Amino acid sequence: IQSKLPQVGTTIFTVMSQLANTHHAINLGQGFPDFMMDEVLVEAVNQAMKNGFNQYAHTNGVPALREAIAEKVLYLYHTHINAETSITITPGGTYAIYTALTTILQPGDEVIVFEPAYDSYVPNIILNGAKPVFIALQYPNYAIPWNEVADKINNKTKAIIINSPHNPTGAILSEQDIQHLRNLIANTPINIISDEVYEHLIFDGIMHQSMLRYPDLMERSFVIASFGKTYHCTGWKLGYCIAAEPLMKEFRKVHQFNCFSCDTPKQIALAQYLQLKDKYLELGHFIQQKRDYFRNLMQGTGFEYIPSHGSYFECFSYTKLSDKPDDVFATTLVKEAGIATIPVSAFYHNKTDEKVLRFCFAKKEATLLEAAQRLQHFTK
Amino acid sequence: IQSKLPQVGTTIFTVMSQLANTHHAINLGQGFPDFMMDEVLVEAVNQAMKNGFNQYAHTNGVPALREAIAEKVLYLYHTHINAETSITITPGGTYAIYTALTTILQPGDEVIVFEPAYDSYVPNIILNGAKPVFIALQYPNYAIPWNEVADKINNKTKAIIINSPHNPTGAILSEQDIQHLRNLIANTPINIISDEVYEHLIFDGIMHQSMLRYPDLMERSFVIASFGKTYHCTGWKLGYCIAAEPLMKEFRKVHQFNCFSCDTPKQIALAQYLQLKDKYLELGHFIQQKRDYFRNLMQGTGFEYIPSHGSYFECFSYTKLSDKPDDVFATTLVKEAGIATIPVSAFYHNKTDEKVLRFCFAKKEATLLEAAQRLQHFTK
Ligand SMILES: CSCCC(=O)C(=O)O
Ligand SMILES: CSCCC(=O)C(=O)O
Repeated sequence: IQSKLPQVGTTIFTVMSQLANTHHAINLGQGFPDFMMDEVLVEAVNQAMKNGFNQYAHTNGVPALREAIAEKVLYLYHTHINAETSITITPGGTYAIYTALTTILQPGDEVIVFEPAYDSYVPNIILNGAKPVFIALQYPNYAIPWNEVADKINNKTKAIIINSPHNPTGAILSEQDIQHLRNLIANTPINIISDEVYEHLIFDGIMHQSMLRYPDLMERSFVIASFGKTYHCTGWKLGYCIAAEPLMKEFRKVHQFNCFSCDTPKQIALAQYLQLKDKYLELGHFIQQKRDYFRNLMQGTGFEYIPSHGSYFECFSYTKLSDKPDDVFATTLVKEAGIATIPVSAFYHNKTDEKVLRFCFAKKEATLLEAAQRLQHFTK
Repeated sequence: IQSKLPQVGTTIFTVMSQLANTHHAINLGQGFPDFMMDEVLVEAVNQAMKNGFNQYAHTNGVPALREAIAEKVLYLYHTHINAETSITITPGGTYAIYTALTTILQPGDEVIVFEPAYDSYVPNIILNGAKPVFIALQYPNYAIPWNEVADKINNKTKAIIINSPHNPTGAILSEQDIQHLRNLIANTPINIISDEVYEHLIFDGIMHQSMLRYPDLMERSFVIASFGKTYHCTGWKLGYCIAAEPLMKEFRKVHQFNCFSCDTPKQIALAQYLQLKDKYLELGHFIQQKRDYFRNLMQGTGFEYIPSHGSYFECFSYTKLSDKPDDVFATTLVKEAGIATIPVSAFYHNKTDEKVLRFCFAKKEATLLEAAQRLQHFTK
């Protein structure tokens, strides 16, 4: 058969995780915690299964879970969202992004993609016959060059993909960015795909600039969230999408014939668990401690951090250590230091290589300590 | 935004389930059991969660589960399948069908669809810019009119969707059908999408004609299976796809950027549970008893069964009772008899109405008894 994605290989996350396994390296590549999630949530799922909640959920999601999400949004972002018409539960954030892009894109459309970019965006766009229009974030602060966005918008531009906190860099949107975005799209029909899967993993007391705060932007936006990232259970593959009713109506047409519905017992459990505000309110602090701990440990290794303000990740420049291309250096680190990372060039269509690696610090302190010691040993 | 699926409304399953809830009717519509699944499997999932298997599974699925599937296929269908290259775990059968069709279809392609047809096929085809070519199964035995298939195949035909045991009718493929299929596609590049989610739910000692039995057909086929249907946990949304390596390679490119991976603890649990052969071997007998029980109870109601040989379903003709259109009669039954069914016209693009309703008999005997009593009362 003819390939619809001839340029696609295996994702960098799978490649690096496999390499890590082969070489028994510490995996600071793919973004997942190595510590146990909250047993309270595990037990709630167990109870839901035992209580017989094992048959199809509503295609849009368990109503109580959607209500709980609407309450959380009101509490955090002061916006009323209609749980009935505007929230859909999905098998993960990646699926929600795929479904949102598939909902809106027609062949020939253009989508603004900021690079480095999470690696599913571009294949999603191409699969729909649309065209990614690439804009590089400014190195090293990874800020959005709004003038360039203005230049690249035209009447084929169907959407802009925003991702804050940003994967792989931990950069975040400021209020000024929101203002730029608002001005740019004001007299256009452009949609926003807002990948906010790290919404609760934000540091230094910074306020998350969710699209959900801005009713005018929400008229155009698909906001994507992830229970896996929030509750340290990335393997549960559960997330959701929020969008205004006319957008959500079309999203649901695609969704009901893509996976139809999501895991019932986990939705039942999360509907209760979401009531516990502390569980998500304390996350930023919890994970910031890990960022700071790892940053400190990395002092003196020659790796230089590029400040992350959110997400599971911090990027480090290694120009003082090597002038190898980042994918080569990442492979060397797996084999010779026993540490897996993600080479950031993998997130650029043209493999732009600033000699930066992404480290996932959502790990036990013991893991981070062992990893830093290995790197100290390797670099001295 | 412009709708990519302007003709799509809410699926009939959701419509009828909601109507059932509103009117507190017994729901014999959407296909799910009302009895408890095996607690052994529930406990295995609980243990997997407690043991910390809560992070990303491999994008293609947990290797031990894929190995267990390959063993099952060898045991049941005498075919060696490479678990590494040819099996991918998916969030349900519907998703696997969506992904297979999205993998192979280019705009302008044609796909042969037999009607009545499970209602996701056609939107999946249209979303990919391809064209469904409809062929009505022969009423009332729902056999495939192979001559008509031969007439409708041309050089635009990219795929044929096969579904045995068949939803909504319970019709099954015979060895003769396989021979017809083989002859028809022999000198073409046509692919087969084989929806076999009811593979274990087959009655009267009949052998399931899985594509997996036929290595020559497997070179062209995507075989779709469902743990939810097999293990009475439709809300778990877990299934898989089996295809030859070149087909699977392309399928995985779409899959890794659609949902990326599936629920980890359930995959771990199923890898063990699949070893218990009796659990799937006894299913046909178990569910056949329910078919027979319900059939008997329905005697004297005026509803006439159209023999089902597999699946959760049996269709009944109601021409002796009413000449209302089937969607109207189905609504009447919910409101006046307290029984929800699925009007079979919903599975035809042109709403062909043979005055047939689909009943799901995968229910407790008490439920089936109460349902039949309500129908007796309504029809007398
Ligand atoms: C879906 S696998 C990748 C996980 C992740 O978000 C990341 O590592 O960036
Ligand atoms: C995915 S909802 C429909 C369930 C089903 O297979 C059916 O009722 O036919």
